[in-house]
Amino acid sequence: MGLIVALDPPEGVDGVEWCLRLIRELGSVPDGYKLGLPLALESGVEGLKRVAEAVPPGKLIIADLKLADIGYVMSLTVRRLARAGVNAVIAHTFVGVEGALDALAGTCGDLGIKLVLVALMSHPGASRVMAPAFRESLRIVKEVGAWGAVLPATRPDAIREGREFLGSSVKILSPGIGAQGAEPGSALEAGADYEIVGRLVTRAENPRAVAEELVRRYERVLGRR
Amino acid sequence: MGLIVALDPPEGVDGVEWCLRLIRELGSVPDGYKLGLPLALESGVEGLKRVAEAVPPGKLIIADLKLADIGYVMSLTVRRLARAGVNAVIAHTFVGVEGALDALAGTCGDLGIKLVLVALMSHPGASRVMAPAFRESLRIVKEVGAWGAVLPATRPDAIREGREFLGSSVKILSPGIGAQGAEPGSALEAGADYEIVGRLVTRAENPRAVAEELVRRYERVLGRR
Repeated sequence: MGLIVALDPPEGVDGVEWCLRLIRELGSVPDGYKLGLPLALESGVEGLKRVAEAVPPGKLIIADLKLADIGYVMSLTVRRLARAGVNAVIAHTFVGVEGALDALAGTCGDLGIKLVLVALMSHPGASRVMAPAFRESLRIVKEVGAWGAVLPATRPDAIREGREFLGSSVKILSPGIGAQGAEPGSALEAGADYEIVGRLVTRAENPRAVAEELVRRYERVLGRR
Repeated sequence: MGLIVALDPPEGVDGVEWCLRLIRELGSVPDGYKLGLPLALESGVEGLKRVAEAVPPGKLIIADLKLADIGYVMSLTVRRLARAGVNAVIAHTFVGVEGALDALAGTCGDLGIKLVLVALMSHPGASRVMAPAFRESLRIVKEVGAWGAVLPATRPDAIREGREFLGSSVKILSPGIGAQGAEPGSALEAGADYEIVGRLVTRAENPRAVAEELVRRYERVLGRR
């Protein structure tokens, strides 16, 4: 409950096989899996499809290509991702609505794909353009009617602000747990719905045990909320 | 001279074959080719490689995935693109430098890949976050030492401002010719180095004749400059 595992294969391995092994191991423990651009490039739609087919039914399968283009190109991309069996996609707010996210939201709606928008990132460079535009990004999330928003676990203040602004109907997904510095459970404490965890699980000696421990912790946090 | 052809296959065709046919037809007429995310997803690195290998030597082969992630992920992506034979990549300025474009620029430098940054887009939604951050974006292009910047042909004022701010050492690449409304040659008039042209060439009855006509026009414009 509350756990999304980011499957980012290390370099020099067969990325699809690496993902399949982890999904077999983790099974239904996480609420979903997030797949990134390096994996998508490795083998295209066919590779993504093999990975998506291995995920147990009812789970989120999120393509995190951080889409940031005009609506026409993003829509073409999402149609291909839909063929791969993905059921959620991540795009950036900063491309704006008209001629960009409006078209993407329409295509996602038609295809039954959940749209998740990055409202803020946590690396230091995000302070230049993204952080000053944070409020505008939240407004765009709302306007577009996105299913979810990405807010960094390393910025619990931004998660709280996001939750207050967006209300309870928009899911908040938080990366930044573990390797990037945030304590597991801290984003959920601040109001997120899901924590996106990568290496802490995928590079563990026993990924399933770590995932189960995270889920137990998340259940305690969510029980208190 | 001055022409980059955007190879964006329509839906429902074999994208790699479609690109190969156009490259055979256009050959050395353009200065380079731009490949997008839908094509990259269709068949992954292997498909891109088949396309890249068909491009005559010395030409730009630009992967336009509009990268907009943390440095680590963008670097992993570019390493895969390098294996495909791509020699330039497009990323967004708005992710900022530290922890993002600094790492990407380093990886591009190591691999001998040209880094091109989107400083502005021209769809209406770009007015929300991108246009107000235009100056900051230009500063980021300079700071990162990017080889080139993308500025829309539909905004000749922005091209002039970009050229003035960036000086002559940074190449300016302008999409938006034809289908998106700008007159061929108008971006070069305003100071761009390349016009990126898609459908006007690729959907023409005789793509090579159209490309040759564009190049003749560009030579006249550049000769006057």
